[in-house]
Amino acid sequence: MIGSGHVDPRLLAVLPARPELLVLDFDGVMTDNAVYVGEDGRESVRCSRGDGMGISLLRKAGLSVLVLSTETNPVVQARCRKLGIECINGLEDKEAIFRRILMERSIASANTIYVGNDVNDIGCLRLAGCALVVADAHPAVLEVADYVLSRPGGQGAVREVCDALIAHLRWNAQKAA
Amino acid sequence: MIGSGHVDPRLLAVLPARPELLVLDFDGVMTDNAVYVGEDGRESVRCSRGDGMGISLLRKAGLSVLVLSTETNPVVQARCRKLGIECINGLEDKEAIFRRILMERSIASANTIYVGNDVNDIGCLRLAGCALVVADAHPAVLEVADYVLSRPGGQGAVREVCDALIAHLRWNAQKAA
Amino acid sequence: MIGSGHVDPRLLAVLPARPELLVLDFDGVMTDNAVYVGEDGRESVRCSRGDGMGISLLRKAGLSVLVLSTETNPVVQARCRKLGIECINGLEDKEAIFRRILMERSIASANTIYVGNDVNDIGCLRLAGCALVVADAHPAVLEVADYVLSRPGGQGAVREVCDALIAHLRWNAQKAA
Amino acid sequence: MIGSGHVDPRLLAVLPARPELLVLDFDGVMTDNAVYVGEDGRESVRCSRGDGMGISLLRKAGLSVLVLSTETNPVVQARCRKLGIECINGLEDKEAIFRRILMERSIASANTIYVGNDVNDIGCLRLAGCALVVADAHPAVLEVADYVLSRPGGQGAVREVCDALIAHLRWNAQKAA
Repeated sequence: MIGSGHVDPRLLAVLPARPELLVLDFDGVMTDNAVYVGEDGRESVRCSRGDGMGISLLRKAGLSVLVLSTETNPVVQARCRKLGIECINGLEDKEAIFRRILMERSIASANTIYVGNDVNDIGCLRLAGCALVVADAHPAVLEVADYVLSRPGGQGAVREVCDALIAHLRWNAQKAA
Repeated sequence: MIGSGHVDPRLLAVLPARPELLVLDFDGVMTDNAVYVGEDGRESVRCSRGDGMGISLLRKAGLSVLVLSTETNPVVQARCRKLGIECINGLEDKEAIFRRILMERSIASANTIYVGNDVNDIGCLRLAGCALVVADAHPAVLEVADYVLSRPGGQGAVREVCDALIAHLRWNAQKAA
Repeated sequence: MIGSGHVDPRLLAVLPARPELLVLDFDGVMTDNAVYVGEDGRESVRCSRGDGMGISLLRKAGLSVLVLSTETNPVVQARCRKLGIECINGLEDKEAIFRRILMERSIASANTIYVGNDVNDIGCLRLAGCALVVADAHPAVLEVADYVLSRPGGQGAVREVCDALIAHLRWNAQKAA
Repeated sequence: MIGSGHVDPRLLAVLPARPELLVLDFDGVMTDNAVYVGEDGRESVRCSRGDGMGISLLRKAGLSVLVLSTETNPVVQARCRKLGIECINGLEDKEAIFRRILMERSIASANTIYVGNDVNDIGCLRLAGCALVVADAHPAVLEVADYVLSRPGGQGAVREVCDALIAHLRWNAQKAA
């Protein structure tokens, strides 16, 4: 099936039956957790075109994607703008924002997927229906994950999630048909 | 033979007998599929000087090289300008453009080589006489490849193709002499 | 224990009983020892958001952090400003500065931790109560280290130190309670 | 011996008895052979602070260092300016320039060391008294090397050469004393 690649059945098994929202941490998930710093303090980050392709295909398949980041630097919004996805950044308590969003949009937490990599993601990972962490996540975060992705952050982890969700949504659509 | 390096005979075996055009995808082929994003959204990419050397040697050997990319960012054209190669980017349907170019220039698809890495390359890979993919191509693309290069994108994959084509063209020239 | 990750007992064993100051070299410790150079000579470096998170948690736990670098480029100060830590750079003799700081602040060298990676760190490593070097330190520096970190510079070495110190400080606090 | 690290005796064995000049290629030797390209075509390269430290120590030990590059981009000169070393770039025939320099400065080619990585270094490698190539050199260049360095370009290869030359010069000085 073109566009979905090879998806691990164990990843498919932990996805919500009816996914409504994919929430992504930025640094360490959409990037390799590095920051490039210039002489004037301006920052750059390294993202993956493959992740961008996956997000584009996933949105065409009908799933909402949201980036939630504590980082205040405008690179977060710059990348999300390019990908055309919603972005909430510069916030201290990600779990509180995540809860508010679910309430405002009447989405059950069970129908959400959260992808994180560090200790400030633990609250959100516990709240989401499906808690995914990148292959190079901090050891303290592995304990709260439903599944550890095979790829590190910024190097295909998000694409791996997108491919699995696309396969899952197609399967749901075929069953419904 | 200086300039050709060690070429895998299996790669030589899948090259067109009379190569006329090498078509390269950009992101993930001429780069490592990463994009560096600044605070203002401006992008940079990471290319290989070794690939540049290979393309330069290949053009001296007489083969045309063309870059075909869906990416709209001007980094694609900036890199091609430096290398002195033709560049068509910002297009949605790469296969349609590829077909039009072959028709306009009266080149048989059998005499073309296409190098890709992701699902949006599949149409072009099927059309080309020789379908090559980088070592770190998306799993869904491996199925349509005649040969999987030993090097990842942006890290020598294009040089590997150039070295093989140069060896092949020299061999053809020797036979003709 | 959230925030501390998995800490090697051998690293805990070499930490000062009562840590008062963590001193970090910059290039090769807070970075991967690379420098990105532009056409105008302006420099950028690659740092780790995970290290930044660790430093932030460590400062909340009450430990002072200081960066000591021979490098004159303003990227050093730019990164430290973002992290809110003290920075002394552009100096030739790091050991002399280190000694002066300890005297001015009445800190016993036995209560300090120094993290380095190259031969210009040897004086400071010998002076500090605890001498740590990154996994990819220069061979000549390994000899003066109390412990070689499991992670290379700019790729989690500083986070590893922070996680160990946080666990250590918590343990001290529990004993005192 | 501080500053020299662990030097392979086989590398020491191929160094000139009386080294007078170290000649370095730039891309792929002083860098990892990558080029970062921005939207406006401006280029950046990734160098090693450890290489910079080695070159600084080697110059203090009294050896001349020269960079010889075909690349026309000003990043080459920007990096050399920072390191305070001589730089000749933007030239087509490196071997001709190398010969002219040796004649003008009355240096015997036997007393020179050249470090390269690609096919355009072959002439210079054959001319130099000691031909060194980086660990990730192009296969066609390995054949002309006296020794293949253990580290790739931009990741310690130059430091490896500097450490060996410093150890060698010290040994010479001790014998002379």
